[in-house]
Amino acid sequence: MERIAIFPGSFDPFTIGHESIVRRAFSLFDKIFIAIGYNTNKRGFFPLEKRVGWIKQVFENDPQVEVNYYEGLTVDFCRKVNAKYILRGLRTAADFEYERAIAQINKAMYPGLETVFLLTTPEYTPVTSTIIRDIIRQGGDATKFLPNSVDLKTFRIEDLENE
Amino acid sequence: MERIAIFPGSFDPFTIGHESIVRRAFSLFDKIFIAIGYNTNKRGFFPLEKRVGWIKQVFENDPQVEVNYYEGLTVDFCRKVNAKYILRGLRTAADFEYERAIAQINKAMYPGLETVFLLTTPEYTPVTSTIIRDIIRQGGDATKFLPNSVDLKTFRIEDLENE
Amino acid sequence: MERIAIFPGSFDPFTIGHESIVRRAFSLFDKIFIAIGYNTNKRGFFPLEKRVGWIKQVFENDPQVEVNYYEGLTVDFCRKVNAKYILRGLRTAADFEYERAIAQINKAMYPGLETVFLLTTPEYTPVTSTIIRDIIRQGGDATKFLPNSVDLKTFRIEDLENE
Amino acid sequence: MERIAIFPGSFDPFTIGHESIVRRAFSLFDKIFIAIGYNTNKRGFFPLEKRVGWIKQVFENDPQVEVNYYEGLTVDFCRKVNAKYILRGLRTAADFEYERAIAQINKAMYPGLETVFLLTTPEYTPVTSTIIRDIIRQGGDATKFLPNSVDLKTFRIEDLENE
Amino acid sequence: MERIAIFPGSFDPFTIGHESIVRRAFSLFDKIFIAIGYNTNKRGFFPLEKRVGWIKQVFENDPQVEVNYYEGLTVDFCRKVNAKYILRGLRTAADFEYERAIAQINKAMYPGLETVFLLTTPEYTPVTSTIIRDIIRQGGDATKFLPNSVDLKTFRIEDLENE
Amino acid sequence: MERIAIFPGSFDPFTIGHESIVRRAFSLFDKIFIAIGYNTNKRGFFPLEKRVGWIKQVFENDPQVEVNYYEGLTVDFCRKVNAKYILRGLRTAADFEYERAIAQINKAMYPGLETVFLLTTPEYTPVTSTIIRDIIRQGGDATKFLPNSVDLKTFRIEDLENE
Repeated sequence: MERIAIFPGSFDPFTIGHESIVRRAFSLFDKIFIAIGYNTNKRGFFPLEKRVGWIKQVFENDPQVEVNYYEGLTVDFCRKVNAKYILRGLRTAADFEYERAIAQINKAMYPGLETVFLLTTPEYTPVTSTIIRDIIRQGGDATKFLPNSVDLKTFRIEDLENE
Repeated sequence: MERIAIFPGSFDPFTIGHESIVRRAFSLFDKIFIAIGYNTNKRGFFPLEKRVGWIKQVFENDPQVEVNYYEGLTVDFCRKVNAKYILRGLRTAADFEYERAIAQINKAMYPGLETVFLLTTPEYTPVTSTIIRDIIRQGGDATKFLPNSVDLKTFRIEDLENE
Repeated sequence: MERIAIFPGSFDPFTIGHESIVRRAFSLFDKIFIAIGYNTNKRGFFPLEKRVGWIKQVFENDPQVEVNYYEGLTVDFCRKVNAKYILRGLRTAADFEYERAIAQINKAMYPGLETVFLLTTPEYTPVTSTIIRDIIRQGGDATKFLPNSVDLKTFRIEDLENE
Repeated sequence: MERIAIFPGSFDPFTIGHESIVRRAFSLFDKIFIAIGYNTNKRGFFPLEKRVGWIKQVFENDPQVEVNYYEGLTVDFCRKVNAKYILRGLRTAADFEYERAIAQINKAMYPGLETVFLLTTPEYTPVTSTIIRDIIRQGGDATKFLPNSVDLKTFRIEDLENE
Repeated sequence: MERIAIFPGSFDPFTIGHESIVRRAFSLFDKIFIAIGYNTNKRGFFPLEKRVGWIKQVFENDPQVEVNYYEGLTVDFCRKVNAKYILRGLRTAADFEYERAIAQINKAMYPGLETVFLLTTPEYTPVTSTIIRDIIRQGGDATKFLPNSVDLKTFRIEDLENE
Repeated sequence: MERIAIFPGSFDPFTIGHESIVRRAFSLFDKIFIAIGYNTNKRGFFPLEKRVGWIKQVFENDPQVEVNYYEGLTVDFCRKVNAKYILRGLRTAADFEYERAIAQINKAMYPGLETVFLLTTPEYTPVTSTIIRDIIRQGGDATKFLPNSVDLKTFRIEDLENE
């Protein structure tokens, strides 16, 4: 039986921390869908297409990975792509409380689903999309916290969605 | 002396977790005011009247419970209904930090007041109003996390307050 | 119906923090049993009789309080004295995790039992029996963390149980 | 490539919480070694052979599971049985901090190793081996927290290792 | 070598907790810049000039303190005023996780920088700017949580920035 | 005025994490006493003289550092060497709760004292003396977690104090 996982998030933007979790899970799953949850009423910081494009570039040589986006419940997307696992990275104790609530609600709605956690590598623990957006908003250089293939020069500030 | 407590919250919506805390406190207090704090400038997800109505139905056979709403400080509402206790449910360690700050500030403003905590039943720990609103927004079915008498069919999406 | 609670602990020794929790619960319960759990195989730092004696002095003018000791399960002592409530103080988020586990196990063994939590007063939050024993072991003066009636001069170091 | 995991612990005793984690990981791994770490200088509460025997009974119909014991570093046992994964259950935020430290040290000593976490089912969250030992020490009945096949009647109190 | 620190924040408003941290750090640093980070696109609750004015009054007799505001990255402001230290108060475990992430990101962007933490005095632990703003919004009296020189009467509700 | 700090601990053994905290505090204090608290009744894992010797070697070229040991209260040692600061590293949220209690008790016993915290470097966060002792007990190689000058070959297992 194929082991299929989704790695859901808004990835606004996708960080070196996210990349690290996915690569470390390569041997655990046969296929990993990186799935951007979005909401037509609530725009992100970076445009959805940019986010999809950047992640596709990061994994362009990894046929195990597929990049998607979805609207609606995460458990419904799992059912659609036949995923029995949700992959998540854990950074801190505060993360843990939040992730536990989400995972338990998901299991209540889709009992066959398991959420599988890997720990963030210590050096990447402080790197969150929120902090990266703050750095960019304040005119700072965030490239050291992003995968090499994410080229922030490819978007213009005036493209930003929710500023 | 009558022991009077208030159980304050926005209850947007009131969940099976909230119901459980109130019922478990029945033997501890002679009267429990379920009190919806609201703010005329900040609308909720569900209309205030719906929220009040749903809670009244949940406890329609429990004369010990009274359902109210208030604007302003929680301690002022306590003084008004002569409540010496605030009842709260504790779910997680993160909850705890937040609840402690609020309880200590309330005590600083009204020294005769005690905040009394019960622990959420384990199965209800992940159920929060925030998660339920997310499920509804994404078109999911949240009825299993709500008291039986809360009939989500009785409101129409176009009635929602802050979408 | 009388509201009866027990306040269990090893109270080795009983601190100003313990005293504060009990006094703040006076209006909530009709009777509070302060109950020292002990184990004949595991001696404490202070002799059991000293501990009982000190607590009795603290509450000698409070007929609402009874001081006891018990061996065996806490829930069995609750059944014996007909207590439906366990009273506990919460100091920190770390406390919370531990208290939650104990409370849930107790409820699994005695479903009619509720554990009721009050928050420790901020100034008393760092005061634990463990820290007080450390101070005494290192020759320091711990009287400011103890109720007035606890007179450390009434025992001699050579009486200590587990040194 | 076969996915081999170890589920290490002292399992003193093995609980319904432990059993649940292993069963939920069945679809994730091809083989799971339940591995009791022991120390010849530090005896447990239950004899090692009892613990091994009980776990074997729990999984007697599950050829995917093998029950072992080991002395020395966990990472050395992983290398010996060719396991690339350590399976662990996460119960609380306090657990998380501890598990993270251990997992990171293990990864520093064996970089090819990943620790994979599943969340404890909410109802089993308070069940720990420590609490079960306390119940037994105090003469209580802990069978509801143990897998069906663990028959506490098969040992006599006088067999206990470290009392 | 002069030891220069900045104490950054939005101070919306500056509380007795903030004042206490700064005064306790007087002997540790030769100069402390209290620096209000602001964002031209995101107005605060109190006008920036009011916030600056109130803090200047609090420390009008303390030549060691200078009050500033800055836009952009905190590390850039540190470089500008030649500060090698960021001073922060720690209130709770939840605070800690957040502060750690910010401090580590700042160090990644400016390796010569150290973030130095003092613990909030227990009585001031629940006092946060967020809670104070809530009290004021609900018509309550927050003066007991503010330094003496902060005279809330000096602003009119209609001056508030983001209501 | 000279800024004098003590860095207290049992340092059993002194780790790369400890070394890192002391070096990062060099610019903050004029003198740092690394002070091993010991108890004549409670032997450590490594002999006291070994521990003192190893730390002296680590800082042999740093005249700012002095290595001492003391029995009794930490605040009494501070008074003796005229230290107004206690330096501590913070690793995790769990650490934080414990450190806060100790720091507040110390301040209650010696009001002029401040405990100053630096955050552990992310890579060193999981390194604790407890984990290192476990590795050594199980026959593992812990040298990568120790300062270069700590030569574990210089002691023989039969010298260990509390095994």
